[in-house]
Amino acid sequence: MEQFQIRTDLAMEARERFEEDVELRGVAIEEDYDEKRDIRVTTVRIESENGAKAMGKPIGTYITLEAPKLSDPDEDYHREVSETLAEYLKELLGTGQERSVLVVGLGNRDVTPDALGPEVVNNLRITRHVVREYGRAAFAKEKIHMVSGIVPGVMAQTGMETLEIVRGVAEETRPDVIVAIDALAARSSKRLNRTIQISDAGIHPGSGVGNHRHSLTKETTGVPVIAIGVPTVVDAATIVYDATRDRNAVLPGLNSMFVTPKDIDETIKRLSFTISEALNIALS
Amino acid sequence: MEQFQIRTDLAMEARERFEEDVELRGVAIEEDYDEKRDIRVTTVRIESENGAKAMGKPIGTYITLEAPKLSDPDEDYHREVSETLAEYLKELLGTGQERSVLVVGLGNRDVTPDALGPEVVNNLRITRHVVREYGRAAFAKEKIHMVSGIVPGVMAQTGMETLEIVRGVAEETRPDVIVAIDALAARSSKRLNRTIQISDAGIHPGSGVGNHRHSLTKETTGVPVIAIGVPTVVDAATIVYDATRDRNAVLPGLNSMFVTPKDIDETIKRLSFTISEALNIALS
Amino acid sequence: MEQFQIRTDLAMEARERFEEDVELRGVAIEEDYDEKRDIRVTTVRIESENGAKAMGKPIGTYITLEAPKLSDPDEDYHREVSETLAEYLKELLGTGQERSVLVVGLGNRDVTPDALGPEVVNNLRITRHVVREYGRAAFAKEKIHMVSGIVPGVMAQTGMETLEIVRGVAEETRPDVIVAIDALAARSSKRLNRTIQISDAGIHPGSGVGNHRHSLTKETTGVPVIAIGVPTVVDAATIVYDATRDRNAVLPGLNSMFVTPKDIDETIKRLSFTISEALNIALS
Amino acid sequence: MEQFQIRTDLAMEARERFEEDVELRGVAIEEDYDEKRDIRVTTVRIESENGAKAMGKPIGTYITLEAPKLSDPDEDYHREVSETLAEYLKELLGTGQERSVLVVGLGNRDVTPDALGPEVVNNLRITRHVVREYGRAAFAKEKIHMVSGIVPGVMAQTGMETLEIVRGVAEETRPDVIVAIDALAARSSKRLNRTIQISDAGIHPGSGVGNHRHSLTKETTGVPVIAIGVPTVVDAATIVYDATRDRNAVLPGLNSMFVTPKDIDETIKRLSFTISEALNIALS
Repeated sequence: MEQFQIRTDLAMEARERFEEDVELRGVAIEEDYDEKRDIRVTTVRIESENGAKAMGKPIGTYITLEAPKLSDPDEDYHREVSETLAEYLKELLGTGQERSVLVVGLGNRDVTPDALGPEVVNNLRITRHVVREYGRAAFAKEKIHMVSGIVPGVMAQTGMETLEIVRGVAEETRPDVIVAIDALAARSSKRLNRTIQISDAGIHPGSGVGNHRHSLTKETTGVPVIAIGVPTVVDAATIVYDATRDRNAVLPGLNSMFVTPKDIDETIKRLSFTISEALNIALS
Repeated sequence: MEQFQIRTDLAMEARERFEEDVELRGVAIEEDYDEKRDIRVTTVRIESENGAKAMGKPIGTYITLEAPKLSDPDEDYHREVSETLAEYLKELLGTGQERSVLVVGLGNRDVTPDALGPEVVNNLRITRHVVREYGRAAFAKEKIHMVSGIVPGVMAQTGMETLEIVRGVAEETRPDVIVAIDALAARSSKRLNRTIQISDAGIHPGSGVGNHRHSLTKETTGVPVIAIGVPTVVDAATIVYDATRDRNAVLPGLNSMFVTPKDIDETIKRLSFTISEALNIALS
Repeated sequence: MEQFQIRTDLAMEARERFEEDVELRGVAIEEDYDEKRDIRVTTVRIESENGAKAMGKPIGTYITLEAPKLSDPDEDYHREVSETLAEYLKELLGTGQERSVLVVGLGNRDVTPDALGPEVVNNLRITRHVVREYGRAAFAKEKIHMVSGIVPGVMAQTGMETLEIVRGVAEETRPDVIVAIDALAARSSKRLNRTIQISDAGIHPGSGVGNHRHSLTKETTGVPVIAIGVPTVVDAATIVYDATRDRNAVLPGLNSMFVTPKDIDETIKRLSFTISEALNIALS
Repeated sequence: MEQFQIRTDLAMEARERFEEDVELRGVAIEEDYDEKRDIRVTTVRIESENGAKAMGKPIGTYITLEAPKLSDPDEDYHREVSETLAEYLKELLGTGQERSVLVVGLGNRDVTPDALGPEVVNNLRITRHVVREYGRAAFAKEKIHMVSGIVPGVMAQTGMETLEIVRGVAEETRPDVIVAIDALAARSSKRLNRTIQISDAGIHPGSGVGNHRHSLTKETTGVPVIAIGVPTVVDAATIVYDATRDRNAVLPGLNSMFVTPKDIDETIKRLSFTISEALNIALS
């Protein structure tokens, strides 16, 4: 009999299902706390198939920034989070060399909590066409990255898998790396809109607010895929299961529903700006 | 000790809290089923203060159309619902005489399930300025209604109560009647996006997806207020309470969250069109 | 010395540069007038390289529907135009057989007169994913077409050529035919928003409100490309040249400007609906 | 015979119709150039009915900031313009005392060059509801202003005059001052999107991209009205008249058309942010 699956896109939450003193082979965890900025960074490294199985997530590095004030409208704080995030992104993107980066804004721009990805691409400094037009020499800089962006839409709007669109575009434009931004589902409502996860493991089926049925990974797209995600919803089913611990209480209809805060429009606007600024800093 | 309040904006659901054979004094109920169109119409008449107290709703007539296929993308069916709705609206609006109608699209156009009201005003046939410019005589019609519309926004966007804006506009433009469209919170997720309630009792505090802190009624605006509402969300708290029957299971954070279906963007687009068409028919 | 180039995307207008009695070799013209619907259809067939050179347009068939009332808000008339348009589309698309059609909404959804293409895709009945999920057998129909859609955005938003995106997506999803919708620049302001051109010659550099630098044709995408265009702007330079017949009067700054009617938002909404309905009818 | 009227909303341009050495009685002009920021400020004071008649503008102070780089995407420069603008606004708003300010975003949010006003209100820090909820004492500040905002829409959307809506809202909410933001029509295309005019003379018929048929002034609304305007279009008729100096060359159809740059979406986004920041600074 199928067990009710608690859905989480956060590796950090996947870890929390185990007692703290259980040692998971193939899973390394590291915590870091920036007291001045009040940002907690948890790095989960899934290093073996064994660890992947235990965690229910593919092999890779998952970096989670928890910033409690991230849902507050404090511009200076958001800039600090952008700067912290940019540091981690630089490392994952390998910006030591010149990079051509394709940023993919996943999700549905017409559904507020799912519009995070499209909004990030909207705020991005797009440069690929300028570099191609005028050449790298035209820039008074030692290193110049090329940034392109696409908002593929969701399957109900396009009739196509996101993977089909992204793979096609990647094959034509040959980026060095793909950055995919997605709104995630969290396990716990207290993490909503306060947590940013970046990972080099790509995007996987069932992740996100929408449904991607195929992974976006190096294997499927031909290019390394860095994922940036923010939990903006909790599954309605999860909230009920949490309250009841009874999987029979989770009525079938709930599976097509999600829970989201009432001020989600302001929150998405701010978060998308924070993430696009981080990318703008990392790729400037 | 304060009891956990199950929130519903549907008079029909308020009635369901009582056993069916309990007779509520001052509350008359009538049911009608259009088999051909598969539309069930329940009319709840709250006729006395006693009935109002028992129901937790003000005196007035509440007509609820339940149309199970309303969330399907069947254009012909939507047109039939528009026509049925138009009949009830004509009666409440008194379109036997020439009427000047101000349509108010309540809610936040940037939050998908709350954008129903703004979308309805968007699709409306606005005529007041044309009638005022060219005169009623210019129309080859016996009777010509004047339709105006406003999307006041929500308090976080305007800093003003909806009532302040609507009352001000009504005092300047002197409509005969106000029609206020609002996205509602339902008690049961099975009614979401399948039910339309119209009422001559106005709009009341705590109704809707957003929070109106002041009623929009004849008393507060100076003009009769017809409310049209569709439940597009369920309170997260309600869903948990339903599953647990335990008000302690309802964590405080849940009160600022709502539950909504994942295809809410398509649904809102269709529903708003169906309602604006009903108004266009009733006022043509 | 470079001559000032009057820019038009309409083959019909290109023809008008010549005296009516000049016979252009390799160019056949046919006119048809539907009196009942007041729709004039001009078919220009450019049949040889010679004709192509004279006309400044590639070999192909260009069908122009002129419908003077198209910019009026008359729903019944718009439906008739959709039906007429659908007939021509069926022929060009070859809907006698089952077809897989990729509809590309060219243009910038954030610039009103350029949003025609994105809006058409928004209103389209997308079916490819459903057919792929449930199979053709699941439909109680003899023939079932697969429709997919994409809004690639413009280069300033994506850093990529439209061709790169479309070719990539076409290579992955293998449609039988591409339909590209684009807002055009007209030569004469009297044709704005009243004319629809469909053509099997694809989309070409310098066409449209935005700038596509590479053609979308069978040669470049690997798939036949049907173009549907509506002139929604006139180049500012053209308007001045028309008034002065003096190319020195056309100041350089004007080249980055366009002229558009003030009620362009309503017009685009209606026109995009008319075109998406034509596609929905042709592909149902 | 009616003369062709060159339309400009900029007092500075109205002055330019006269030779520089013509002395206009009742009109005082002052120029100021901030070399570091490359911002030229022209203050036109129309002090008598005589001056008003000569200029074709009501009595009042008109301050024009010309900032050539304003249409460039340079964030630091935009911040400097915001700061300069804030200084002038503080003076006109009288922020030495606590003020209650109603910001009105005029124009049509669905027409790109007319969306300036709605966008400014979108980015504004709205505080009136918070001050009213928690009281001024709750703020750790000596002085606290109350900011409210409204986007009234245009007559085709509402069926109402803008004045009817604004006057109604002002009577209900009793602001000390109204700030009305509007997209303007310029005389010269070289001023487009590079010029900001602020004035204490209110908003007048025929101003702006849309058509306000009634003035928004202290006389009509009961409250002083500060206008902030940016020319985002040139009338198509003006451009042709400029090129030909022949009013017969201006065809009637051109009067319902406007000319706007192709990158108007990016420009409006930046300009609206610059103006809302200026207001946020002035009212913080």
